[in-house]
Amino acid sequence: MKIAILGVGLIGGSIGLAARERIEGAEVVGFGRSAQRLGLALGLGAVDRAAESLQETLDGAAVCICAAPVGSLPAQISAALAAAGSDCAVTDVGSVKRGLVEAFADERFVGGHPIAGAETAGVEHARADLFEGATWYLTPSETSSGLLYERLHRLIIALGARPAAIDADAHDRMLASISHLPHVLANVLVAQAAGRDELPRIGPSFRDATRVAGATTAVWADIYLANRTAIADEIDAAVSRLQAIAGELRAGDAEAVRAWNEAAAEDRRRLLAGELSSDAVHELRLTVPNRPGVVAQVALALGRAGVNIVDLALAPAADMRSGAMTLWVAGDEPADGAVALIEQLGFAVARG
Amino acid sequence: MKIAILGVGLIGGSIGLAARERIEGAEVVGFGRSAQRLGLALGLGAVDRAAESLQETLDGAAVCICAAPVGSLPAQISAALAAAGSDCAVTDVGSVKRGLVEAFADERFVGGHPIAGAETAGVEHARADLFEGATWYLTPSETSSGLLYERLHRLIIALGARPAAIDADAHDRMLASISHLPHVLANVLVAQAAGRDELPRIGPSFRDATRVAGATTAVWADIYLANRTAIADEIDAAVSRLQAIAGELRAGDAEAVRAWNEAAAEDRRRLLAGELSSDAVHELRLTVPNRPGVVAQVALALGRAGVNIVDLALAPAADMRSGAMTLWVAGDEPADGAVALIEQLGFAVARG
Repeated sequence: MKIAILGVGLIGGSIGLAARERIEGAEVVGFGRSAQRLGLALGLGAVDRAAESLQETLDGAAVCICAAPVGSLPAQISAALAAAGSDCAVTDVGSVKRGLVEAFADERFVGGHPIAGAETAGVEHARADLFEGATWYLTPSETSSGLLYERLHRLIIALGARPAAIDADAHDRMLASISHLPHVLANVLVAQAAGRDELPRIGPSFRDATRVAGATTAVWADIYLANRTAIADEIDAAVSRLQAIAGELRAGDAEAVRAWNEAAAEDRRRLLAGELSSDAVHELRLTVPNRPGVVAQVALALGRAGVNIVDLALAPAADMRSGAMTLWVAGDEPADGAVALIEQLGFAVARG
Repeated sequence: MKIAILGVGLIGGSIGLAARERIEGAEVVGFGRSAQRLGLALGLGAVDRAAESLQETLDGAAVCICAAPVGSLPAQISAALAAAGSDCAVTDVGSVKRGLVEAFADERFVGGHPIAGAETAGVEHARADLFEGATWYLTPSETSSGLLYERLHRLIIALGARPAAIDADAHDRMLASISHLPHVLANVLVAQAAGRDELPRIGPSFRDATRVAGATTAVWADIYLANRTAIADEIDAAVSRLQAIAGELRAGDAEAVRAWNEAAAEDRRRLLAGELSSDAVHELRLTVPNRPGVVAQVALALGRAGVNIVDLALAPAADMRSGAMTLWVAGDEPADGAVALIEQLGFAVARG
């Protein structure tokens, strides 16, 4: 399987390293704007081959991963779709999805976003295990090909990550909450601390809380701008919460302060438990009509309900009018919920 | 030297471990409300001896460290001062200082606060190296004894930390900025993420940003309340900053967003550089009048200017009317600044 990677930096390079290490028969071909950095990627083993043109990169590729910074993704994806064959799955790794999904209503395109990374950038920091256990969002639309979606889903599992389908708009609002707002708050914390009359000495907890402050502007300014409405909404909500607790503090309302802190402890426990869940896997067999959008429909319905699809396989029937779809779902309750959701969609489902 | 520790938990226990490991001739005697936990501290080697009464703990002690949670400190310090001898330095380790310094105008009392700790509580997490390289604030007042201040300063250095004198009010405002506000923002982040319709999957950067969310309510509710005015002021300032950036995002002002992020990157660099500075040490010899408050006056003036006093020694003259004070100061420029500041205070100073 030929895997094309456009932009071999931290994320693209880590995909290349992981694919070369974990996927038998993978051929990773990289392409990028800087010949020197592409040479470095080759030297570090992130790609099998450095291509000299976009066309050469994509010829015969089964998958194309667009790994440019958010601001350059529209042009990169557009060029990739123009050069890719009809059986090539094209995805990206950007952290803002709605604009891309709206712009590229091509059956070969499925937006993607691995929740992994580091403060560092550049292929020299790439690691084969960067995606181990990480959530990797996919934002299929109704136009996305089911077979190409399946291919991406399995590739992501092979890279060590956990694919999760999500609606592009819901993704962007969620990311505003769990990634973009934390960046904004980290920026506010350092600005406020550094703006004091005397530069304070900071400790380990401040360092942790502000690890992402002032993240690479060339990358992050575009993220902030691409997702500006959702981020501004999250900021407004945070402002309301801050004003409420400031009022309770000024009033010396000990009970309210205690309850607020206890609730945060419970919220944190729930968020961490969600992250760490790992349960028995159940096999579900579906029969679905063989038309575009069905796989996306099922994956999105389960993703919305928080069901973790561990693996997924499609087998079109000989007449190509219907197909068998097998899902492996983690957890007893999620499996029960998945069965109910699939039946609500009108598809037959049996437990394996 | 007998060191009394009241409350042998994470901080008190770590002080005991460090003192027993690093200070020759130290005898660490612990006391606490729970006999069982005190027995555990003894078993873990955090104290040489577990006392059965406050008076037994303090008899003949050169230093008494009050290590109760913030809410219990006033009663603990009051009892310690009543039981301690006239030559015993009494300090505490609480993260809010103004109320204590105002309440205890006793020449034996100097407020203290090591910037160290962990999410964990309890002596079972105590470590001899907890204070290695950490800033340890001291908040002497004009009534504090210079000789007892010197004893605490040297004890802190022996424990591996860097003492820094600071005005109690400035301390509380600074802590509101570098510790209490980060806790408030972490609470807001988890509340907002967990309050979504679907529980989001979080990644490593969210986990780092919210490590302190919902910190032990029994400890933190008292901290929030004890420092409520300064914290509410910091929240107000953060709200203003958040509203400004939300406005720039909604306006799609790319230049403003870029400049804001670049400034945060620079602020973070400055804060980290301040934390890591380690320079050549200069010796300064002062002649000062031998009256209460002089040491505090010098230490605070240098602390305000960000001068790191690596060590300090006092030697009263035979007539007890004046004394020699030697300071070791880190860095060429800080040493020059320290000389100027000391001269402004009206004291003679020579470089060693």
